[in-house]
Amino acid sequence: MTQENSHSSSYQLWGGRFTEQPHQVLQELNNSLSLDWRLYADDLDASKAYAEALMRAGHLNAAECDKLVKNLELIRYDWIEQLVKFQASDEDVHTVNERLLVELTGELGQRLHTGRSRNDQVVTDLKLWLRKAIRETLGRLSLLISSMVEQSQSHLGVLMPGYTHLQRAQPIQFSHWLLSHAFALREDCLRLLELRDRCNVLPLGSGALAGNPLGIDRLWLAERLGFAGVTGNSMHAVGDRDFVVDFIYCCSLVSMHMSRLAEDLIVYSTKEFDFIKIADIFASGSSLMPQKRNPDSLELIRGISGLITSNLAGIMMTMKGTPSTYNKDFQFDKQYCFQAYDKLAQSLDVAIGVIETMQVQRHQLEAALSSDMLATDWAYYLVRKGVPFRQAHHHIGRVVTLAEQRGVDITEVPLGELQQICAAFGADIASVADYGYNVQQYDAIGGTATASIVEQLRLLKNLVKQLGEQS
Amino acid sequence: MTQENSHSSSYQLWGGRFTEQPHQVLQELNNSLSLDWRLYADDLDASKAYAEALMRAGHLNAAECDKLVKNLELIRYDWIEQLVKFQASDEDVHTVNERLLVELTGELGQRLHTGRSRNDQVVTDLKLWLRKAIRETLGRLSLLISSMVEQSQSHLGVLMPGYTHLQRAQPIQFSHWLLSHAFALREDCLRLLELRDRCNVLPLGSGALAGNPLGIDRLWLAERLGFAGVTGNSMHAVGDRDFVVDFIYCCSLVSMHMSRLAEDLIVYSTKEFDFIKIADIFASGSSLMPQKRNPDSLELIRGISGLITSNLAGIMMTMKGTPSTYNKDFQFDKQYCFQAYDKLAQSLDVAIGVIETMQVQRHQLEAALSSDMLATDWAYYLVRKGVPFRQAHHHIGRVVTLAEQRGVDITEVPLGELQQICAAFGADIASVADYGYNVQQYDAIGGTATASIVEQLRLLKNLVKQLGEQS
Amino acid sequence: MTQENSHSSSYQLWGGRFTEQPHQVLQELNNSLSLDWRLYADDLDASKAYAEALMRAGHLNAAECDKLVKNLELIRYDWIEQLVKFQASDEDVHTVNERLLVELTGELGQRLHTGRSRNDQVVTDLKLWLRKAIRETLGRLSLLISSMVEQSQSHLGVLMPGYTHLQRAQPIQFSHWLLSHAFALREDCLRLLELRDRCNVLPLGSGALAGNPLGIDRLWLAERLGFAGVTGNSMHAVGDRDFVVDFIYCCSLVSMHMSRLAEDLIVYSTKEFDFIKIADIFASGSSLMPQKRNPDSLELIRGISGLITSNLAGIMMTMKGTPSTYNKDFQFDKQYCFQAYDKLAQSLDVAIGVIETMQVQRHQLEAALSSDMLATDWAYYLVRKGVPFRQAHHHIGRVVTLAEQRGVDITEVPLGELQQICAAFGADIASVADYGYNVQQYDAIGGTATASIVEQLRLLKNLVKQLGEQS
Amino acid sequence: MTQENSHSSSYQLWGGRFTEQPHQVLQELNNSLSLDWRLYADDLDASKAYAEALMRAGHLNAAECDKLVKNLELIRYDWIEQLVKFQASDEDVHTVNERLLVELTGELGQRLHTGRSRNDQVVTDLKLWLRKAIRETLGRLSLLISSMVEQSQSHLGVLMPGYTHLQRAQPIQFSHWLLSHAFALREDCLRLLELRDRCNVLPLGSGALAGNPLGIDRLWLAERLGFAGVTGNSMHAVGDRDFVVDFIYCCSLVSMHMSRLAEDLIVYSTKEFDFIKIADIFASGSSLMPQKRNPDSLELIRGISGLITSNLAGIMMTMKGTPSTYNKDFQFDKQYCFQAYDKLAQSLDVAIGVIETMQVQRHQLEAALSSDMLATDWAYYLVRKGVPFRQAHHHIGRVVTLAEQRGVDITEVPLGELQQICAAFGADIASVADYGYNVQQYDAIGGTATASIVEQLRLLKNLVKQLGEQS
Repeated sequence: MTQENSHSSSYQLWGGRFTEQPHQVLQELNNSLSLDWRLYADDLDASKAYAEALMRAGHLNAAECDKLVKNLELIRYDWIEQLVKFQASDEDVHTVNERLLVELTGELGQRLHTGRSRNDQVVTDLKLWLRKAIRETLGRLSLLISSMVEQSQSHLGVLMPGYTHLQRAQPIQFSHWLLSHAFALREDCLRLLELRDRCNVLPLGSGALAGNPLGIDRLWLAERLGFAGVTGNSMHAVGDRDFVVDFIYCCSLVSMHMSRLAEDLIVYSTKEFDFIKIADIFASGSSLMPQKRNPDSLELIRGISGLITSNLAGIMMTMKGTPSTYNKDFQFDKQYCFQAYDKLAQSLDVAIGVIETMQVQRHQLEAALSSDMLATDWAYYLVRKGVPFRQAHHHIGRVVTLAEQRGVDITEVPLGELQQICAAFGADIASVADYGYNVQQYDAIGGTATASIVEQLRLLKNLVKQLGEQS
Repeated sequence: MTQENSHSSSYQLWGGRFTEQPHQVLQELNNSLSLDWRLYADDLDASKAYAEALMRAGHLNAAECDKLVKNLELIRYDWIEQLVKFQASDEDVHTVNERLLVELTGELGQRLHTGRSRNDQVVTDLKLWLRKAIRETLGRLSLLISSMVEQSQSHLGVLMPGYTHLQRAQPIQFSHWLLSHAFALREDCLRLLELRDRCNVLPLGSGALAGNPLGIDRLWLAERLGFAGVTGNSMHAVGDRDFVVDFIYCCSLVSMHMSRLAEDLIVYSTKEFDFIKIADIFASGSSLMPQKRNPDSLELIRGISGLITSNLAGIMMTMKGTPSTYNKDFQFDKQYCFQAYDKLAQSLDVAIGVIETMQVQRHQLEAALSSDMLATDWAYYLVRKGVPFRQAHHHIGRVVTLAEQRGVDITEVPLGELQQICAAFGADIASVADYGYNVQQYDAIGGTATASIVEQLRLLKNLVKQLGEQS
Repeated sequence: MTQENSHSSSYQLWGGRFTEQPHQVLQELNNSLSLDWRLYADDLDASKAYAEALMRAGHLNAAECDKLVKNLELIRYDWIEQLVKFQASDEDVHTVNERLLVELTGELGQRLHTGRSRNDQVVTDLKLWLRKAIRETLGRLSLLISSMVEQSQSHLGVLMPGYTHLQRAQPIQFSHWLLSHAFALREDCLRLLELRDRCNVLPLGSGALAGNPLGIDRLWLAERLGFAGVTGNSMHAVGDRDFVVDFIYCCSLVSMHMSRLAEDLIVYSTKEFDFIKIADIFASGSSLMPQKRNPDSLELIRGISGLITSNLAGIMMTMKGTPSTYNKDFQFDKQYCFQAYDKLAQSLDVAIGVIETMQVQRHQLEAALSSDMLATDWAYYLVRKGVPFRQAHHHIGRVVTLAEQRGVDITEVPLGELQQICAAFGADIASVADYGYNVQQYDAIGGTATASIVEQLRLLKNLVKQLGEQS
Repeated sequence: MTQENSHSSSYQLWGGRFTEQPHQVLQELNNSLSLDWRLYADDLDASKAYAEALMRAGHLNAAECDKLVKNLELIRYDWIEQLVKFQASDEDVHTVNERLLVELTGELGQRLHTGRSRNDQVVTDLKLWLRKAIRETLGRLSLLISSMVEQSQSHLGVLMPGYTHLQRAQPIQFSHWLLSHAFALREDCLRLLELRDRCNVLPLGSGALAGNPLGIDRLWLAERLGFAGVTGNSMHAVGDRDFVVDFIYCCSLVSMHMSRLAEDLIVYSTKEFDFIKIADIFASGSSLMPQKRNPDSLELIRGISGLITSNLAGIMMTMKGTPSTYNKDFQFDKQYCFQAYDKLAQSLDVAIGVIETMQVQRHQLEAALSSDMLATDWAYYLVRKGVPFRQAHHHIGRVVTLAEQRGVDITEVPLGELQQICAAFGADIASVADYGYNVQQYDAIGGTATASIVEQLRLLKNLVKQLGEQS
């Protein structure tokens, strides 16, 4: 009787062998419930399937199985309605769910964990959760790509300086620049799709480390839970967190791409560049300086890449050098994983809003084109006249220096002087001064000509469509 | 009137220049209140001092100043009593405190921010907070060192195998091993003490970036707030987070030391070593395997070093390549800093408990001494007989191999055979077989002889005393 | 004439615009030749293809193209024969190759770079190099897996304690343990195969950033160089280093798996465990202690995971926040990439040797099985008698504690006392004491029963075969 | 005889116990000579002192000691003259030096290692090396600070926009901005000075782990080698790499500061800002675009911060979770340490050159001041008229918005309209329009007024002088 009481007031998945409760400071460090409660639905789903597997293996009869499944659904309802109360002894979400089940079904609930260990249970739950997290992340990436596609489409034909080393390089289309970021995100989508498929194998049935001796049909379980197969070695399965590391890596790479997009936009929205106007709703002011309109949204996106990536550094250091199978060190996997996911979600949501609402300053973009940016096309002009490229490059370099020394545009250097530098210059050099015309020459696949950009838009729209169909 | 309403329902430190509120998704990412509320007391302390400085500079009269100070104390009371209610527009703790002050004092409260910026305010608050965090961390380190000192003292004379490469090396004292970890923590204390002093210069009065034009006496402010001096360049002051990075670095290094201590203890508490018994209250069981007693506490300490260090990686990546002065990226400094501090505190608390309660298995420690560990002392024996060390080393190596091939102890190799390997062996080699006697030979400073360990204990007790006096 | 001389003595791909040579200290930092010379063959391959593409686009005639191609082959010969002499002005491998070509072919060589930039050239070279690096890495992984398969096959049936938390958990087969590491490496192979295919798109033809305006057929070029397609946006193509980051990530994950394998083996080869004997050729001695045999090979493998992973941290921090397209920061990509590849190759080579030559101490492995490891199977015994698992777990926990207090094996607790703890115990509990028999019960896919291990071996051999066919 | 030969052809510090040489692949991974040869002089210095200590303890006579010391000097000569030839069996610099000594002095040389281990030897060597590395790094930092001081001094009075969030904030002096970076470097100097002193304790005499049993006088040794004391626990001493981690951390932080300086300069040298002109000797061109002048020097400085910091991530991950005392994993410490030092040296050298030679574009700097940057001073104007700051801030915000909507400067808004926004505006607002005048108001310590900058210059010059005196 007393034991019953102590049971209900302090339900632990272990303890027969222990004479004392864990120390308060250990409980605080050990307790993962503040993080892993997010897995409650996955834990219930996996438990339902496991109950059925136990029945199929003859360890429960149909009525028992049915009762377990129904009560697991009741528990889900309590979670959704926020009726679940935690107890001090609830180490993790698995303990909570089993405790609630035992409260509802008594001895029957005590049969569910037969042949299962938290070691295989938690990996299964995490994989189920990850499946949804990947879908959500793909959804956000898709929205961000769409917003870029839209801005690009509606600004087709707007020219701007293209930069390398943040120095003016060649004239390009604004849309070409914006889509260059969309293409980085496209790779991120492919990476996530591959991960989704690669890690979609079921660990449940691996037990604590040695496997399952009770006739559980793992292939049936896998199918039941939407996995494409089962893990091949139980010791590997319970000690493996690669799928978490992979996901955090994918998030880190996305965040790195976002930091570069943010950097571009921060620079482009300075007074000095003035290419872009961030919408008021994505800017902030200063507590001291009344005139300020700061691109906080973009700085947060840039800075958060450090935070997201820190989770990658953390999980790799945590995993490093641990013995095989399960070690308690792995508990931090959820902290790393959830933070990477949550922060990336926030970052993407803000980026979507920024891109959708930003104002493209066409006038300033085109006003920033300067004649020195014609240099490459001038070199190609000489090439077409038969001058070897490396010489042409050298000649134009001298023209640029000459113009700079005089404080004039290269288009203002008299033909005679051009011809002194290279005899191949002719009066037709004047025709290479049209930025728009030049841009259209770059029509190889991936170039900045309109035809190429239209093709890029088609590719990205297809991706967005394909992602939409999958979710 | 309406404005009054809008004021009270949405107090922002800026906004006159904006026509719209920040977008919901930006607010979520931007809002730092869920983290920086922890600075509330430091923010109030700094504000009180700043109000006085404004008075001293003639911008407030004595009554005004007094009223501000009193109301700031009222706000502190509300925080302590958890009466402070956040509003959606409360960006951060500074906004909350100013909003509350304005609610209490009206126009007067609107004067407090004169010449101050959140840029210098937040650095000041953080430095005040850090001062306490360093003190707390030193306190925990001191306790952990004390618990090691105590265990060492009460086990003086217990021998055990010393390991290098996790292979048995030479006999040592158990206390010598345990104190080796204490000496690493001693360095951590020194590092924190240096940081405490180095960063103890006041940034307040740097404004947004350009400094203060209103006659604020920064040296007075510094003294008032317990700083040893003031920062020397306002642009550096508002853009500097080195003191946060330094602190996280110190925490990371402590956690690395803890991970090594944990690794030793995990290995030593395996069934195979059995040197140490972790107390039940610092162990956990298994949900599947009834016999398990797992050293979860130690694994968490080992694993958490990855988490703590990830904050270092994160803040350095976040800071990298940002333009000078303040950028919104820095907002993540608090996330990194608080997590490093909190997690280290938990880790240290658990370690203190583990060390205090662990059971030292004297019998097993001494039973693990094996005759091959005499090899170095045997080599010194030959050296004392005039054999050059490198040759002595070689001879003993051959003795060990011979014994191993025969499956006997080196002490069981007949003298005749020893002399075949090296003529310098005599009957007195038998006297070098006493582990305890050998250990006492290592009496140079830092060695494993008892005299040396007693000196180590004295050093560490002095440190603990010194730390106790400072706090 | 003088210019000719200066040309030949200081060939730079740019300079017409500059009046001075780079400063010595910049040259030292800038010069990447000490690293990127490794790309020479890839650079020549890409240049040959590009010469042909120029011909196909009408910028060279057949004889010119032929001459370029032949001379590029001559340059390759010089590299192989180590006849290439570097000059102070050789910034990188691209400069060297173009300089040599111009030395051999004069003006003709100056035409090769038409429409090409180092920006698209270097990414192309790196991708060609990476293709080989992936193949080599897969080759080494395949060898390591094979050595594990072989050791597993020849030790089928050898039992040992399986560990979780480094505490004895359940009896398993030695082969099951070893293959758990092979399964981690199998994932690494899959990851590398996916990367190989995902990044196999050609960047050449992207120019400096804007694309190619000279009618280059990029699809033809891609096919010619063995790429499956072309990059879709030129600005993205020249600023993208994801494929390098991905590769370093894959290497880091392999090294993390290796660190865990090393940790197991280090612990297993202590005197206290004594499960494994590292071969002399993979151990080292001590300069002071004659008896030492240290597992240096394994410690290096464990430690090097930090070095390899540091390249991941480095490249992500380097890329973070850089503006779009090419920035000179990216130059460090090669340092990160080559170090990750080289160090992983060394680590894998050593691991292959260690696994092939290690001695499995069957006697010690089986002697380490202890009766407390029967606990789970005893719980299943009670489950089969109808006791709910959670109760069975609790009962066995009490049996273990009882036995421990008495200092006896659980198999030595009299039946009567067992029945006092749980009435379901019967005389047949004695039959659950055979470790070998128990192990064979774990016959679900992935379990430690022999049938399951045989299936694991088949899977891994298939992978090895498949990898062999691809290279 | 044969043994003699094998000895001289393959000198190993251990081996009597081994029957086979290390495997080739292990030798490659294990061999640290390609890195640690840099410690040769420190190794010789420590060995000389150790020989004397052996004499003082009675293990060598004066003649023997003298002979060892003289021959160690001969070896140093060979190193300097590059006459040292490595052999395949030379594991590390310690082996080389001992082998050479034995070649020169026979049996006598074999006595040097008495009581010493490579474990205490390598830490001692590293600490001696580090002492010089810190001095060199301080020297470079001092030069960089000096170059900043000089540029600041010669441009006193030049105004420019100060930025926060990369948005124009308040007018400042160019020198104030440049010195803000110098102040970050000043902290770096302090950090290095603290480290130099904190780690200046001698580990020699700790042996392999247990200490020294041969009467070595460690305090005498410490004084002889310039250490301020000796390590307190031998096991800690041989397993401690904190001083290396600390140094790499200091380097990482410097490199982070440099990355921020570089970012500022990259942005400031864009065509759009045009505040700074990087000298030709610190810029590079493009292989394709003739007009380009890229700030490669600055991008390399920015990017290399990732490389330097990666060594910190690496060493912390390598150390994490290793057992106490020495493990072979630590061998990578030198790789991390030397790379951090070397790369920082290159980065600082380039930065010194860039700062010294850059051209400050006074005209463009001052032309970039715009009237919206008067906003804060206008708010202070209202404050002086009695308006509470928060209201003043709000009013000026509205003025700025109004001006922006009209497309005029705030100074062009008619007084009447200003007064409609806030009645406190008077005609004297016109006087707040002088940037230079306003700047001089910021005269609190650390502000941008000339008096403050002069004080900053004094502080920094003192530091430079103090550093000069110490080296």
